[in-house]
Amino acid sequence: MTLLDGKQTSLDIQAEIAEKVEQLTAKGFKRPHLAAILVGNDGASQTYVGSKVKACERVGFESTLITLDGETTEEQLLAEVEKLNTNDEIDGFIVQLPLPKHIDDQKVIEAVNPLKDVDGFHPSNVGKMALNLPCFLPATPYGILQLLERYKVETSGKHCVVIGRSHIVGSPMSILMGRNAYPGNCTVTLTHSRTKDLPALTREADILVVALGRAEFVTADMVKEGAVVIDVGITRVPDETKKRGYRIAGDVLFDEVAAKSSFITPVPGGVGPMTIASLIMNTLLAAEGKSALNG
Amino acid sequence: MTLLDGKQTSLDIQAEIAEKVEQLTAKGFKRPHLAAILVGNDGASQTYVGSKVKACERVGFESTLITLDGETTEEQLLAEVEKLNTNDEIDGFIVQLPLPKHIDDQKVIEAVNPLKDVDGFHPSNVGKMALNLPCFLPATPYGILQLLERYKVETSGKHCVVIGRSHIVGSPMSILMGRNAYPGNCTVTLTHSRTKDLPALTREADILVVALGRAEFVTADMVKEGAVVIDVGITRVPDETKKRGYRIAGDVLFDEVAAKSSFITPVPGGVGPMTIASLIMNTLLAAEGKSALNG
Repeated sequence: MTLLDGKQTSLDIQAEIAEKVEQLTAKGFKRPHLAAILVGNDGASQTYVGSKVKACERVGFESTLITLDGETTEEQLLAEVEKLNTNDEIDGFIVQLPLPKHIDDQKVIEAVNPLKDVDGFHPSNVGKMALNLPCFLPATPYGILQLLERYKVETSGKHCVVIGRSHIVGSPMSILMGRNAYPGNCTVTLTHSRTKDLPALTREADILVVALGRAEFVTADMVKEGAVVIDVGITRVPDETKKRGYRIAGDVLFDEVAAKSSFITPVPGGVGPMTIASLIMNTLLAAEGKSALNG
Repeated sequence: MTLLDGKQTSLDIQAEIAEKVEQLTAKGFKRPHLAAILVGNDGASQTYVGSKVKACERVGFESTLITLDGETTEEQLLAEVEKLNTNDEIDGFIVQLPLPKHIDDQKVIEAVNPLKDVDGFHPSNVGKMALNLPCFLPATPYGILQLLERYKVETSGKHCVVIGRSHIVGSPMSILMGRNAYPGNCTVTLTHSRTKDLPALTREADILVVALGRAEFVTADMVKEGAVVIDVGITRVPDETKKRGYRIAGDVLFDEVAAKSSFITPVPGGVGPMTIASLIMNTLLAAEGKSALNG
């Protein structure tokens, strides 16, 4: 069994990008510049945005954090988005979600210039992903593809079963793994809450992507010997033996499933840390004017 | 076994829309107006465009056919597209594909205003389809959904297996059948040329969508008793017993598969005639400013 080490892989990617940024600036190019908009003072959102901004700085990007108070109107936010859309200094930007309830998330997502949409949330980028055209891939799926690629996991002709059809993980993963590309070219089965006899399906999976958000849902009896297991879940489970009173669990019962797997992502330290690498890769691509790679 | 009669269903839909148009015009609203651009003089394309324009006229739409000669430059075509984008008289329009080789199809597709893109080819519409947002659905998938709906075929929790991953049929069908909607909520398996042991997978299908373009590929031994079979194929097979020297065949060996099916589309007269109904439904939605329904 090989551990798909997302923490190390993310650091490797960041180191490679840091080197590339130095080469670019040595040639006189400007540093890639990511901006982030944070509305309100939700603690978790502040933490997420903070870590994104710090990661940008570590690789030598410029970064701009725009914080707007929780009373900001939709109109004011859309005006900020438009400023970033038209500011040539900014290569890519994100609007941290969720937004306060009086603002329509989808309207804001669609206001972002698709060429600066490094979160890959704009319908135009989602559509290009489905059409196998250059685009910005969403962070979690892009991170998973990177892991598969860097560990040289074979995918062509394999049966990939995805559990969960969220718009940010399960649904795009099902699209990406079925494309004529590497990683990809899988026969793909997308399963969800309406699926009948899920274990019979997961036992057919050569590659199993688990993204339903239920702690330790996938047990060894649901997994084929030698499967590649990608665990996207991350849940706090009460645990009195821990100082903080909880432990972090994935959607996969790790120890027993790992024993049957050829490759598996740990939680934490698997898929999670890759999302930062994805954002940085997308921002570099935006700065290079490539809009983005894919396929 | 029930035949999913696309010919009759398409006529029913057109009759319903014709009535709706009369109601709209009686209230003083203008008639929906579809425009089509045809570049060059490919015989098949002329036939397709002609039948679309005629169908529009039958339901009381206005229609405009713009024919450009085969020497038209990409720039000139893009200028025509922009005229239609900004012409308030035109509710929706299509650019007949394929275009001459010196013109980049994708560039033209992306130039169409997504709110007038009644073919549903713009990446923004494809992305909205994947995100289960209102959009224009592409003609063949939309037509299939209509058939399933009008024949009240149960889909929730069923296993839908799709053969073929083309951007215009297989790939969007796999997305649509997995959405949280009706028709939808299927467990979906997308198969293609790299898939191993296809018959084992198709035998699991409660709903089988066949869109690979190989005549009579699906035989009875590949189909589960009671399956719903949607045949998207249409191929000319040499047949000396026919006056014209060929017969039209689907991707399914009809007689033996029909004997095992609960519902099946014939070829011709199944999925094919539904595409015209889809285009007309999308144009009506565009005229109503609904951009489009879905989900």
